[in-house]
Amino acid sequence: MDMKITVLKGDGIGPEIVDEAIKVLKVVCECENINLTLDEQPIGGVAIDKTGDPLPQETIDSCKSSDAVLLGAVGGPKWDALPTDKRPEKGLLRIRSELGLFANLRPARIFPELCSNSPLKDSIVQSGVDLLVVRELTGGIYFGKKGSEQINGEQSSYDEMRYSEHEIERIARAAFDAAAKRHRKVTCVDKANVLETSQLFRSVVARIGAKEYPDIELSNLYVDNASMQLVNNPGQFDVIVTGNLFGDILSDEAAMLTGSIGMLPSASLGGSGFGLYEPIHGSAPDIAGKGIANPLATILSVAMMLKHTFQMTMHAKVIEAAVEESLSVLRTPDLMPAEEEPAHSLGGYITEVFGTRT
Amino acid sequence: MDMKITVLKGDGIGPEIVDEAIKVLKVVCECENINLTLDEQPIGGVAIDKTGDPLPQETIDSCKSSDAVLLGAVGGPKWDALPTDKRPEKGLLRIRSELGLFANLRPARIFPELCSNSPLKDSIVQSGVDLLVVRELTGGIYFGKKGSEQINGEQSSYDEMRYSEHEIERIARAAFDAAAKRHRKVTCVDKANVLETSQLFRSVVARIGAKEYPDIELSNLYVDNASMQLVNNPGQFDVIVTGNLFGDILSDEAAMLTGSIGMLPSASLGGSGFGLYEPIHGSAPDIAGKGIANPLATILSVAMMLKHTFQMTMHAKVIEAAVEESLSVLRTPDLMPAEEEPAHSLGGYITEVFGTRT
Ligand SMILES: [Mg+2]
Ligand SMILES: [Mg+2]
Repeated sequence: MDMKITVLKGDGIGPEIVDEAIKVLKVVCECENINLTLDEQPIGGVAIDKTGDPLPQETIDSCKSSDAVLLGAVGGPKWDALPTDKRPEKGLLRIRSELGLFANLRPARIFPELCSNSPLKDSIVQSGVDLLVVRELTGGIYFGKKGSEQINGEQSSYDEMRYSEHEIERIARAAFDAAAKRHRKVTCVDKANVLETSQLFRSVVARIGAKEYPDIELSNLYVDNASMQLVNNPGQFDVIVTGNLFGDILSDEAAMLTGSIGMLPSASLGGSGFGLYEPIHGSAPDIAGKGIANPLATILSVAMMLKHTFQMTMHAKVIEAAVEESLSVLRTPDLMPAEEEPAHSLGGYITEVFGTRT
Repeated sequence: MDMKITVLKGDGIGPEIVDEAIKVLKVVCECENINLTLDEQPIGGVAIDKTGDPLPQETIDSCKSSDAVLLGAVGGPKWDALPTDKRPEKGLLRIRSELGLFANLRPARIFPELCSNSPLKDSIVQSGVDLLVVRELTGGIYFGKKGSEQINGEQSSYDEMRYSEHEIERIARAAFDAAAKRHRKVTCVDKANVLETSQLFRSVVARIGAKEYPDIELSNLYVDNASMQLVNNPGQFDVIVTGNLFGDILSDEAAMLTGSIGMLPSASLGGSGFGLYEPIHGSAPDIAGKGIANPLATILSVAMMLKHTFQMTMHAKVIEAAVEESLSVLRTPDLMPAEEEPAHSLGGYITEVFGTRT
């Protein structure tokens, strides 16, 4: 088997966290005799410094000819003075649209070892929180017709939320596919009691579920209720599927429930298994180069890559288990009580654990 | 001074909780020599039983000629078989639109005595949570143009979010007015980095603030960040002002943070001080008539009425303090450790405390 990955280390702590994650990817490939090709390309600030463009054409081309993309983080104070459309972050927005990534997968998991970081009471989180928000990423109100006009002598502004069947079908399949690799439960979150788009969303998700995934449990929840249930009983959820706006709000709420942003990976999927994988945290320029950045979210992004692009679900689970185990052995300062020493090579630790498990 | 209140007790526990709240209102009026007129009218299931209509015209007329409306709760299994537009809940929806109530005020307060009910850790809530979500109630995407059409052989549905200047001006004033009676801080929540309506919302709130309320602090937050901040540090908020959809989600999230839905009042304001005041909980038909229903949310709704319709902020504060005090003396079963006895006359207790304070 061949595996071609474009590696976009980016800025700040990007290079060091991606390096740790690649150690893990390499050991998996060695174990399985996979022929791994890594193509490192610039994005963000480093790309601006090199080429004047936060997303050079060569980077796009490399991504398009790869099976998947692993990204670190972009941005830093060095490029803050640039105009908005020349900033490193623009590279990130453009790569997502260039690659047609329509499904954003945002897991929120509270590891038992990190219960104390959660803002929620132990009684709520200790029975386990492990949910995945699948957010539609290229449609809905963020991309609808919008404008502003004078009506009766005053300004009136509008944004259109719109969804078509094919957009909902593909995000529904992304959610059901993910649930098939997890606990086989999907909750469709919408506001179908008020919105037309939500009624269509709900009915298409139900149709795809009934026809193509009859063995996956499907339930519905209104978005206001979902925002309550996430706080009150997050352990009830497996996969949440929802539109762009609701997914934006709920995925961030769910992330905060973990209290450990440095632990959270993400995937943005396009068609036929292609995906871009990255931690949800930023480039943290203040701690870059000190060897104390937490690489676990990037390592977990590699696990997501194995699961969603390469269908290597068992390998992903071994990595996740090794990450969990590492928490009681080594921790970077962001996760550590003040008296402990920083630990530098989590990637090495994970690869060792991985070696003993396979 | 005259005070004319329409009383809509409704169904289930509605009558008993409103009765307790009226005891409190009466003692305030006695203290202040206010000439109180109460006009009791049917709404919901009782109105259906009496007249066939969940909102008889006589009830509407009474509300329109009153200074304010105090409402209990509506609905119950007896009327569940009726068609949607004949159900008790329809009376509630219709009264809100008949009265032109455009501002929904939803406080979320965690009383120190009830910290243990919150899903949040004590370390987060013990420094005090006392916020107010001011939600625009008659505009935005819930009331915009909506529909469904066939495009390229597939169904496409849309909902338009729209806001005009005058709608934002009046909700902004409602929020700043409320903040003036609280901690003088308003946070405008929107998605101005993406939505046109949010850009208008943000700029109009800023204009009203700068021109009419220069001594009230105003800040901005994106809605996805707000949903995180509510969980992570709810104590930072005083008043949140936002549109209909975002307010729906955030007010429910904030309510759940308290863990004590039975303690939460609400106000829906129209022009010139008119308002409808009601607990956010339902009619709880299963415990109706047992004398164990918690009247505190309704009593706190009376406090909101005094504050927002009658500008009697000090009297409202005395009631709020008495409610807080009652929590360490008497509790209804919903707030009580199992071993204690139910307490039946919280309204009486609050009136007594009120008597000793004024
Ligand atoms: Mg977001
Ligand atoms: Mg709601």
